[in-house]
Amino acid sequence: MAPTTETMKGLVYNGVGKIAIEERPVPTIKKPADAVVKMVYSTICGSDLHILKGDVPSVPPGRVLGHEGVGIVTATGSNVSRFAPGDAVLVGCITVCGSCAHCRRGMHSNCTADDNDGGWVLGNAIDGTQAQYVRIPHADNSLHRVPAASSSSSAAHLDDEDHLKALVMLSDTLPTGLECGALNSRVTPGSSVAIVGAGPVGLAALLTAQLYSPSFVVVVDLDAERLAVARSMGAQHTAKPDEAVALVQRLTEGRGCDAVMEVVGVPQTFALCQELVAAGGVIANVGVHGEKVDLHLEKLWSKNIAITTRLVDTVTTPMLLKLFAAGKLPAEKLITHTFPFSDIMTAYDTFRAASKTKALKVIIDFEQDVPGAAGVRGARL
Amino acid sequence: MAPTTETMKGLVYNGVGKIAIEERPVPTIKKPADAVVKMVYSTICGSDLHILKGDVPSVPPGRVLGHEGVGIVTATGSNVSRFAPGDAVLVGCITVCGSCAHCRRGMHSNCTADDNDGGWVLGNAIDGTQAQYVRIPHADNSLHRVPAASSSSSAAHLDDEDHLKALVMLSDTLPTGLECGALNSRVTPGSSVAIVGAGPVGLAALLTAQLYSPSFVVVVDLDAERLAVARSMGAQHTAKPDEAVALVQRLTEGRGCDAVMEVVGVPQTFALCQELVAAGGVIANVGVHGEKVDLHLEKLWSKNIAITTRLVDTVTTPMLLKLFAAGKLPAEKLITHTFPFSDIMTAYDTFRAASKTKALKVIIDFEQDVPGAAGVRGARL
Amino acid sequence: MAPTTETMKGLVYNGVGKIAIEERPVPTIKKPADAVVKMVYSTICGSDLHILKGDVPSVPPGRVLGHEGVGIVTATGSNVSRFAPGDAVLVGCITVCGSCAHCRRGMHSNCTADDNDGGWVLGNAIDGTQAQYVRIPHADNSLHRVPAASSSSSAAHLDDEDHLKALVMLSDTLPTGLECGALNSRVTPGSSVAIVGAGPVGLAALLTAQLYSPSFVVVVDLDAERLAVARSMGAQHTAKPDEAVALVQRLTEGRGCDAVMEVVGVPQTFALCQELVAAGGVIANVGVHGEKVDLHLEKLWSKNIAITTRLVDTVTTPMLLKLFAAGKLPAEKLITHTFPFSDIMTAYDTFRAASKTKALKVIIDFEQDVPGAAGVRGARL
Amino acid sequence: MAPTTETMKGLVYNGVGKIAIEERPVPTIKKPADAVVKMVYSTICGSDLHILKGDVPSVPPGRVLGHEGVGIVTATGSNVSRFAPGDAVLVGCITVCGSCAHCRRGMHSNCTADDNDGGWVLGNAIDGTQAQYVRIPHADNSLHRVPAASSSSSAAHLDDEDHLKALVMLSDTLPTGLECGALNSRVTPGSSVAIVGAGPVGLAALLTAQLYSPSFVVVVDLDAERLAVARSMGAQHTAKPDEAVALVQRLTEGRGCDAVMEVVGVPQTFALCQELVAAGGVIANVGVHGEKVDLHLEKLWSKNIAITTRLVDTVTTPMLLKLFAAGKLPAEKLITHTFPFSDIMTAYDTFRAASKTKALKVIIDFEQDVPGAAGVRGARL
Repeated sequence: MAPTTETMKGLVYNGVGKIAIEERPVPTIKKPADAVVKMVYSTICGSDLHILKGDVPSVPPGRVLGHEGVGIVTATGSNVSRFAPGDAVLVGCITVCGSCAHCRRGMHSNCTADDNDGGWVLGNAIDGTQAQYVRIPHADNSLHRVPAASSSSSAAHLDDEDHLKALVMLSDTLPTGLECGALNSRVTPGSSVAIVGAGPVGLAALLTAQLYSPSFVVVVDLDAERLAVARSMGAQHTAKPDEAVALVQRLTEGRGCDAVMEVVGVPQTFALCQELVAAGGVIANVGVHGEKVDLHLEKLWSKNIAITTRLVDTVTTPMLLKLFAAGKLPAEKLITHTFPFSDIMTAYDTFRAASKTKALKVIIDFEQDVPGAAGVRGARL
Repeated sequence: MAPTTETMKGLVYNGVGKIAIEERPVPTIKKPADAVVKMVYSTICGSDLHILKGDVPSVPPGRVLGHEGVGIVTATGSNVSRFAPGDAVLVGCITVCGSCAHCRRGMHSNCTADDNDGGWVLGNAIDGTQAQYVRIPHADNSLHRVPAASSSSSAAHLDDEDHLKALVMLSDTLPTGLECGALNSRVTPGSSVAIVGAGPVGLAALLTAQLYSPSFVVVVDLDAERLAVARSMGAQHTAKPDEAVALVQRLTEGRGCDAVMEVVGVPQTFALCQELVAAGGVIANVGVHGEKVDLHLEKLWSKNIAITTRLVDTVTTPMLLKLFAAGKLPAEKLITHTFPFSDIMTAYDTFRAASKTKALKVIIDFEQDVPGAAGVRGARL
Repeated sequence: MAPTTETMKGLVYNGVGKIAIEERPVPTIKKPADAVVKMVYSTICGSDLHILKGDVPSVPPGRVLGHEGVGIVTATGSNVSRFAPGDAVLVGCITVCGSCAHCRRGMHSNCTADDNDGGWVLGNAIDGTQAQYVRIPHADNSLHRVPAASSSSSAAHLDDEDHLKALVMLSDTLPTGLECGALNSRVTPGSSVAIVGAGPVGLAALLTAQLYSPSFVVVVDLDAERLAVARSMGAQHTAKPDEAVALVQRLTEGRGCDAVMEVVGVPQTFALCQELVAAGGVIANVGVHGEKVDLHLEKLWSKNIAITTRLVDTVTTPMLLKLFAAGKLPAEKLITHTFPFSDIMTAYDTFRAASKTKALKVIIDFEQDVPGAAGVRGARL
Repeated sequence: MAPTTETMKGLVYNGVGKIAIEERPVPTIKKPADAVVKMVYSTICGSDLHILKGDVPSVPPGRVLGHEGVGIVTATGSNVSRFAPGDAVLVGCITVCGSCAHCRRGMHSNCTADDNDGGWVLGNAIDGTQAQYVRIPHADNSLHRVPAASSSSSAAHLDDEDHLKALVMLSDTLPTGLECGALNSRVTPGSSVAIVGAGPVGLAALLTAQLYSPSFVVVVDLDAERLAVARSMGAQHTAKPDEAVALVQRLTEGRGCDAVMEVVGVPQTFALCQELVAAGGVIANVGVHGEKVDLHLEKLWSKNIAITTRLVDTVTTPMLLKLFAAGKLPAEKLITHTFPFSDIMTAYDTFRAASKTKALKVIIDFEQDVPGAAGVRGARL
């Protein structure tokens, strides 16, 4: 099960706008809590596109990108007790030291591990998952055992491959939608919900908000295709941004929505959210913002609202794994395309041109084009 | 106990900048849930000054101002079961229908009573408490029985008069500090706390934050006198605005404060709060804002913070009454001056010129200059 | 719309084991907050059977029974502002003064209204809903506007009559299952859930637990028919009591269930719950107990569990109404039989002999046999 | 800083009723996450007495007892990043793997670490702290850096030695009082509180309950001396068990207490708690029970109460350290005696005979009688 070659291929960021598949040494165990994982499936995140634009200064040229995926453990450090080579695992997008003050309170996103190897570090401060192998620090806390397809209700309609692909959505997309969106906006049974932005994370917020039985969800986006997708995933209502206020006013007898999620990241959509929120409601910011926004405290100071921000902590990943295994979370609906790793440049193009390609999440498949690779079917699933 | 005269005196708002004591009919019961209260003590609120400047368009000329005070019930409607003439009562600044959707969830500030006589209506949509008598709608929900001085630990150091004056702080100032400030910012034992603004409400936030045993409280204000007052009320640290960031960085090893309260209401202080808040912390907005502010989501989107707004709901008034009766809430510290009602114009001047007069809250005394009035000592305390 | 006759018929408790339909004066407004409601549909509760056995000493002979139902308002007191004659309403089983210390914190079940007319008083301390008319104290707080069938998603599969019948389940059965069961046991997405007892309230707990997306629900009962009903309402697993521990151990890898609900009310089932609960879990007691039980603190003291008790507060009725209107709460599944009021004695027999008749909830229909009665279709729905 | 001898002395359990100081090898690092700590101060817990009586079957003969104390790190495994030799540390009584499902939700007491070295293992499943050296598994999660006396407000009245002794109370006694008692019973500002049992843990519950500003605390015990101690630590009222119900009824106008803590562990005191609790209140069980108790569900089923159990999780230790450093937690009040380790048998006798000796917590001092030992003053405080 150990790597039979000394080198591997990985997608490397080489400065603004430049990425390429390059040959790299296979990573090895550096610290006792490390594991090395052979990737089976990965995906591309909106934040990878931000990196490519040069918006994430913590990412140096030469970095292997990617922070999502499933794979097989090939090596473990002496302090790893929960995983062994051969285990199929989900890679959490957040690396969790578990000991710092932030981790102790579940705020893993802001982990202050002593070696700066906690929080969002994969494909950022250290090499990531868009490669044949990846080193995962603090592996006991940062990896999750994959539920076997055969033992779970989700197997009813997914074969082994699709089951594993769907799990990739639990690395980042679904916990982000749930933690930053549905949970932070306090969706509860009977809530009125508005989600502004119907990209993959907005749709993940839609899927996970439904775990709490809202009265209805309105999804707002400029793209009619994505609104249609939102309806197919359970949204009762959809609107273009300029129709949203009138629709919400009508649906709520003028009160506004209890739970409003901003999943775009620009001033205009944050402004819209302030018009949609009801007295006593919450605006949960999920979008990544590049500039300041206007906050209309002159209107909101007496409306008993909250505004929240959050980088995903992945504290809900165990819950999402249970729900996926129970057949109650149709994670696979977020996936539109699959590409072999050798074709990852096309995958990036497809993901970036989503309005044309109708792409939601695109899966990167490491086995499709690697002859003789130890397949997932041989793993201890 | 019924009013022996048909008229009374009240302070009337007559348009921007104009107030005067005028003769008015004593209010009577209009609806079965009403009570009429003969005022003993009232006070002036910062929002009264806003009204005078013309900032509160819901207040028409001719309105009797005031939404705070203690007094004696003189009449009750047929549906009032908790109070009877002769009862000494605290007037809550928020009138509570108790039946609307907002009241059912404790959001009395946004009460949507059918006759529009719920929420902040006293001295606003209806005549208020800066008068010898006031009509209180929904009296069972909006008045609170006053703890007798003689039966409470607070009596140890307060005589009857000072006991009653101190209770006036429980109409609005202390519940606002607690609900909009200490509770909304989630002060818990060990929290690091910053309060920006050391006026009466900021100091009320300081007094009530200490009910939750924070590690320390930093109070920020431009006025050195008020910072000295803050230290005397329990603040461990104080700072001018331009020193605040450096102080908080030093006290928290660069992390910022868990709980930050904005108790001023201008863009500059809200901006400061964004520099003071720690990852995972809360900015509780208490100040009344007249214009929009900048929200730096480009810095805060990943810091897992919350920003809250609130108009006081007075849901904590029963708790504050218990703590005051137990001698655990030194409400009297917020009071600096007492004026007879006949001198209320001077009281307004004193309150407005706080930086010169060092005024915090000023008490209006209705008995001092009303010969033969049925005094509080005759009431069923 | 006012009653055209001076008398009505009601089901009267005449001492242990004795009930009869009797002629009574139509109730009238006694206090300003009262409403009189002409009943359209009512039902029988397990607690009515307890009364019949003499187990509820607060119920005197001569009392009209019943605390559930829907009807049409025929008269309102001068302090009722939210309802008017002609309104179709749901009668909450708990009467809510809204002003006492318990009501202020949402604990309406233990309302301490000054006239002792709050809490569970209908069909107990005052005459109830198994009659053609009923007087409802504190009507603004204790009645709920009925969502029109035509405007709600629930109309898709329910005609007007079945829509109204289903709403009767929201008087007591569903809020009890939700508040005392699902909420108190803290069902959250991914929870493992066990419900011991599959009577109407246990099944209501099953329906409402699913609003929170548990991983699975195990329902335990002696009656195989009821277990089949539980499966049809969404239970993934069912067991006889003697099989329950082994099943739960197998499903949870020996840990036990996060949320366990006791919905029977005898020592044996409470003992079973203690064997089913996981470390960190909750046993929510819903059953009405007539004797003490054993609590095995020698086993549980270190397991970080909670045990809760509750009489329904009906604080969730507005939420349930929204979910029912949104078509997300199949309340109608709890109804198995309908009887005209004239045949209510048969209804009691059928309900009591549930193991033979397979009855869940039985609807009492007041219009079926009252010629010329103003039907619900004429009401302001 | 490394041990200069190969052996050390420790207190060893040799079967029911038998303990002795024995010579043992100094423990060494066995796993990468281990640390070895040279003890400076330890103490004796009520559970040590339970072990001596043979009540804790998990403790085999030959075990070194003790799970509390402060000391100096002398060695660390390769995966320990937060501590280094020379660091002064507090030993948490619970060992925390940080990765298992229970630890992820803060339920460290029920840690299911893969090697069974999590939860309460010190002086139980592995050798403990009543020895000159102890091995601490999962050191990054299980040790806490000690606040320097010189930098903290607590230094105002405590010298270095007393400061360190007081910290020993934060290993187990104070977090148990807080987590199992004050927090589980939901003490909030204004609460009425009853604590049944005034031993060290009951008094720790009293000290920590006051962090939340209750209206009053009643402490109940048979021992008049301990009641006097309780009053000196802030209890407003005290009672013998047979006076407690009448006192609480009088203080609460018949309602009972909001927060009731059982800190004894026998059926009689648990029965008393059921008589003391108010509707809507909580009974937090802190006591270690050896047999089942009666639970009067026939009285409590409708009173909306909760009963909680808990083994301390030490999740509040960081908060308690902050409060102690801020001078807001008079931990030193719990300490009555200090003995050199060589005299630990007398310490056990003194602790066991508390009613005669008036002992609360007794400190074991490892430096007093070890000539040439590297003292705490030489450590990196």
